[in-house]
Amino acid sequence: MSLIEVGSFIAGRWVPPGRDAFVITDAATDAPVARAGDATLDMQAALDHARQLGGPALRALTFHDRARILKALALHLSERKDPLYELSFATGATAKDHLFDIDGGIGTLFVYASKGRREMPDARLYRDGGPEALSRDGSFIGQHVCVPLRGAAVQINAYNFPVWGMLEKFAPAFLAGMPSIVKPATQTCQVTEACVRMMLDSGLLPAGALQLIAGGVGDLLDRLGPQDTLGFTGSAATALKLRGHPGLLRHAVRFTAEQDSLNASILGPDAGPDSPEWDLFLREVTREMTTKAGQKCTAIRRILVPEPHAKTLIEALSAKLGAVHIGDPRDPGTRMGALVSKAQRDDVLAKLDALAGETGRICGDPDAVDGAGAFLPPILLHCADPDGARAVHATEAFGPISTVLPYRDMDHAVALANRGEGSLVASVITHDPEIARQAVEGMGAWHGRIYLNDRSSMAASTGHGAPMPHMIHGGPGRAGGGEEQGGIRGVLHHMQRVAVQGSPDHLSGVTGRFFPGSETHSGPTHPFRRYFEELQPGETITTVPRVITSEDITHFAEFTGDRFYAHMDDAAAARNPFFPGRVAHGYLLLSFAAGLFVDPDEGPVLANTGLDALRFLKPVAPGTAIHATLTVKDKTPRNDEYGEVRWDVTVADAAGDAVATYELLTMVARGDRA
Amino acid sequence: MSLIEVGSFIAGRWVPPGRDAFVITDAATDAPVARAGDATLDMQAALDHARQLGGPALRALTFHDRARILKALALHLSERKDPLYELSFATGATAKDHLFDIDGGIGTLFVYASKGRREMPDARLYRDGGPEALSRDGSFIGQHVCVPLRGAAVQINAYNFPVWGMLEKFAPAFLAGMPSIVKPATQTCQVTEACVRMMLDSGLLPAGALQLIAGGVGDLLDRLGPQDTLGFTGSAATALKLRGHPGLLRHAVRFTAEQDSLNASILGPDAGPDSPEWDLFLREVTREMTTKAGQKCTAIRRILVPEPHAKTLIEALSAKLGAVHIGDPRDPGTRMGALVSKAQRDDVLAKLDALAGETGRICGDPDAVDGAGAFLPPILLHCADPDGARAVHATEAFGPISTVLPYRDMDHAVALANRGEGSLVASVITHDPEIARQAVEGMGAWHGRIYLNDRSSMAASTGHGAPMPHMIHGGPGRAGGGEEQGGIRGVLHHMQRVAVQGSPDHLSGVTGRFFPGSETHSGPTHPFRRYFEELQPGETITTVPRVITSEDITHFAEFTGDRFYAHMDDAAAARNPFFPGRVAHGYLLLSFAAGLFVDPDEGPVLANTGLDALRFLKPVAPGTAIHATLTVKDKTPRNDEYGEVRWDVTVADAAGDAVATYELLTMVARGDRA
Repeated sequence: MSLIEVGSFIAGRWVPPGRDAFVITDAATDAPVARAGDATLDMQAALDHARQLGGPALRALTFHDRARILKALALHLSERKDPLYELSFATGATAKDHLFDIDGGIGTLFVYASKGRREMPDARLYRDGGPEALSRDGSFIGQHVCVPLRGAAVQINAYNFPVWGMLEKFAPAFLAGMPSIVKPATQTCQVTEACVRMMLDSGLLPAGALQLIAGGVGDLLDRLGPQDTLGFTGSAATALKLRGHPGLLRHAVRFTAEQDSLNASILGPDAGPDSPEWDLFLREVTREMTTKAGQKCTAIRRILVPEPHAKTLIEALSAKLGAVHIGDPRDPGTRMGALVSKAQRDDVLAKLDALAGETGRICGDPDAVDGAGAFLPPILLHCADPDGARAVHATEAFGPISTVLPYRDMDHAVALANRGEGSLVASVITHDPEIARQAVEGMGAWHGRIYLNDRSSMAASTGHGAPMPHMIHGGPGRAGGGEEQGGIRGVLHHMQRVAVQGSPDHLSGVTGRFFPGSETHSGPTHPFRRYFEELQPGETITTVPRVITSEDITHFAEFTGDRFYAHMDDAAAARNPFFPGRVAHGYLLLSFAAGLFVDPDEGPVLANTGLDALRFLKPVAPGTAIHATLTVKDKTPRNDEYGEVRWDVTVADAAGDAVATYELLTMVARGDRA
Repeated sequence: MSLIEVGSFIAGRWVPPGRDAFVITDAATDAPVARAGDATLDMQAALDHARQLGGPALRALTFHDRARILKALALHLSERKDPLYELSFATGATAKDHLFDIDGGIGTLFVYASKGRREMPDARLYRDGGPEALSRDGSFIGQHVCVPLRGAAVQINAYNFPVWGMLEKFAPAFLAGMPSIVKPATQTCQVTEACVRMMLDSGLLPAGALQLIAGGVGDLLDRLGPQDTLGFTGSAATALKLRGHPGLLRHAVRFTAEQDSLNASILGPDAGPDSPEWDLFLREVTREMTTKAGQKCTAIRRILVPEPHAKTLIEALSAKLGAVHIGDPRDPGTRMGALVSKAQRDDVLAKLDALAGETGRICGDPDAVDGAGAFLPPILLHCADPDGARAVHATEAFGPISTVLPYRDMDHAVALANRGEGSLVASVITHDPEIARQAVEGMGAWHGRIYLNDRSSMAASTGHGAPMPHMIHGGPGRAGGGEEQGGIRGVLHHMQRVAVQGSPDHLSGVTGRFFPGSETHSGPTHPFRRYFEELQPGETITTVPRVITSEDITHFAEFTGDRFYAHMDDAAAARNPFFPGRVAHGYLLLSFAAGLFVDPDEGPVLANTGLDALRFLKPVAPGTAIHATLTVKDKTPRNDEYGEVRWDVTVADAAGDAVATYELLTMVARGDRA
């Protein structure tokens, strides 16, 4: 069988590997599989291509445009998973492992596609937080916005997740409007390359939005500037080298790293051998030790169990681990495949030696599995003196190895978990919310993610080791101090936050959204007679007034059943610190306001779907005349049929004082629909 | 007069300066004023004190506790401004300059005190964003929370704002729950020291919350760990050294820098000599050039004006600058004082030389002002070839010097502003919202703040050069890539964001807030009969059902005037994509729900103050029986009399389907009030 020639995609063309390329071997058979690297790549051309072609093309799109592309891309890849699965077997990964890497990667695209549509505007500029009042009269205000950086997002990934590792960094950068230059670990880059080819062949990506480096990065880092970003997943040693790179330091290039992590899992002090949490804990630990043969940055390295249960747990866990079938990942009966390479196995065994002084081996004989591939059994260690131990809290054996550490009480467990000096994730399997609280308060500062699980959540839980695109991935200290994903947070890492200050008119102009205080205008007809595409932010209508009588209030109370004393009893109401005497119901104001502004006939406004930020600002006594002002605040397209219009509503009295303000949500039909 | 001996406050005690201390001189008279530095300071003791005493004490407080202390501290300092003013004169600052430094610093404390109460919970853990749905059935969810870092916040400040510079870094760290170690620039540290003494003497701060280093930092940086933070304001050269410090790199210590910045101000192409914006622009530029004698990181260094107006503007600006009275800052007639020192003046003059090749001097003779102090007049330069120039876009003369650059059109102005390669602030004086939009879209990636101003906002505007605590302060590239303040954003820089995953019960336990799906319980009586301190998250009540009849809907329509066809006309409603036929008004549901759950008599619940996140989920046809479930979600104390209770409300039909959900806000009296 001829070897796969893994190409790089630079400045719009594919570059094959060079003569002295690295030969990638099959993890299970040691047979050569592919060649990669040693090509002469013009890194300046790659950066120019990204900055001058990819960036402008992406920035011309809105967040919704980009989100739609991500969704189409996810669908495109979903239909082409089989060839990726096939290639991935050679990395030692089983069919179940593929679910994490390939399906997980595609799932990340789907989540970012969905969040892009739901949580970002159909615009090129993201509003970060609400307006800030910088003046008493509201004529000068502030609003933070985020705009895409103008450079390239360089992404250096680890070997263990050739697809997910790429897509979890690519998706947020793309949604932000930044072009990506992807550099997978050479050891498994044939899988990444196949995925990148599919993405490029889809025709969905603007030119320059995605480039690929198979092999070394050459002088790329020397060429990065203040508008570029660098994301890294890998060893602490490499991260340290990158972090201290003079060019990155000089230009204050944004750098984020996921590096080493001695993740802990704690069996709660409440979870005895008869509890559902006990079995759950055994399942979680077994899964984390064996998935990807333990080659996961989030895998459980330290197993913390209450001292009285340690012996029982070790027995049960050993039994489970002993039953794990290890073998060729292509074999459907295989539960755990091979490590990626013999070099990686050697590295793991060296770490095992480093742990030997502090631990005893419970199960898993490193010499027991042989064959041509880089196989290892799950190896369980026990550390009798977790307080005195050092290596156990500092040495990451990146394979199917984990150490049981007994603890005395929750404070002790927390202290031991924190001894890792920074991790990506710590889990606590407990049915006691108070234990959960202690864990987060005591451990939060040292762990990027805290995973809680018990009988009530286990059926739906996503697993200790699975970073979800909704939640941040990264941790302090040893874990690198970086942060990725976390929904839109991960998108903002690729954008510049700008504090914009100015008049409401300035801010309306900048954002395309109506800011209270900025200029309004009347439309040609009642706004309920206007289609989605016709309505514009700032279009407004003010109703005629309506007097709220004492009889109205009494009637409303009798009709609805809401006979709260503040509406019924003048003397009692006056004793209340908020009311001058009897006042109208808040919902009466809302209802009358709707009665004033609603246009009753069939028309483009289809439904009132909700309401946000309602505040009752001034009590309304009987005899008060109220009127309402309704202004288009913002519009969000939903589909070809209709879109959401958000209205700014003020209900005011005859003196012009606002008695209630709120944002009204309506669905409005498109007149331009097919 | 004897010299001030500037002490350091380390590990709970004051340490006087050493024998070879630096002698601080009066900027205006060159007379010796104070001695600082050369003391032997135990930096490990300082860190231990912060980590072991200050941190735990601060973390035991809630955000509201800390906010109250900040407010008390602000009031304490407000009553003691005069001695700080007095000391500040010696730094060359005028009475007006004191407003920026001393009053501005105190104002920052007030803003953080207010935001801490209004935007953070009365808890020790901050919820960052809303819950994330990680499972279909809601039994496993995610929530980001932020907890204080466990280390010390080390803050290295610049000489130009000895009070504000300290307080703008201290306030967010304190609110986060992190102890501060403050290191002011030695040149003006006598002012910082006086302020720190006042803060310590107030008795308001827990021991270990604030320490002061007057003089060098010794080996402090070598001792920082992954839970410490380092904030820096100063030169790019020093920032680069700090950023590359091996210890900081190794532990991934969070580092933020405000460094050099060639801030630009653009006179909009729409703003001719007769416009109100013209005069406004002259005032802004003059103020920025002369305040603090131009020693402000946000001062305008590049003045961008439309080519046709350049000559007229230069004349007008020269006239204004020529009229500025320079002299002893203690003299009430003085408009601009001295630079901080002769060394600083020498530095500025060297930069002036560097600019000489690309610019012509319009006004301001560096040799014209003499006397013993470090005086300089405002110096206006003109650059005829802004595209060819390099030094103008790269050389920060940190004094009263600015260069006029003519531009052709807005694209050109944007390109020139971006030539600074990263700045803290750019301003655009324009009355045209479209110009504002172009500016933010074109310049946003290169500037941390964009300040817009015109006739409508000028009376209330806060000034190009004034960082507001509400808005972020910092910028990309040359400006250091850092970010400070920005309201709560600045607090979060001192906290670890943790992705917490678990069941609703776990999350309720962790946050002390009710998460839908978690366990509820009935109280001993109707919740409207319970005082603020009695109500607990999860306390719930479910009402009896009420059938909504066709007559109810018709009656409500007639009463309120809301005769929208979906409520009145079965056939028309059925043509609407959202409705099966005639449906009840959303506000009728709200009103009836209130009628079902309100307890009418006088009691602890005082008022319904508002409502958030109302969504109508399922249309309600006539004949449907609805009921409401009301659950305490969260509580926020407001004052000694009452607090805000946020309720989770679900209105459901007989099938148990939610037809509407919302969060209801009420004010509830305290039973334990004095």
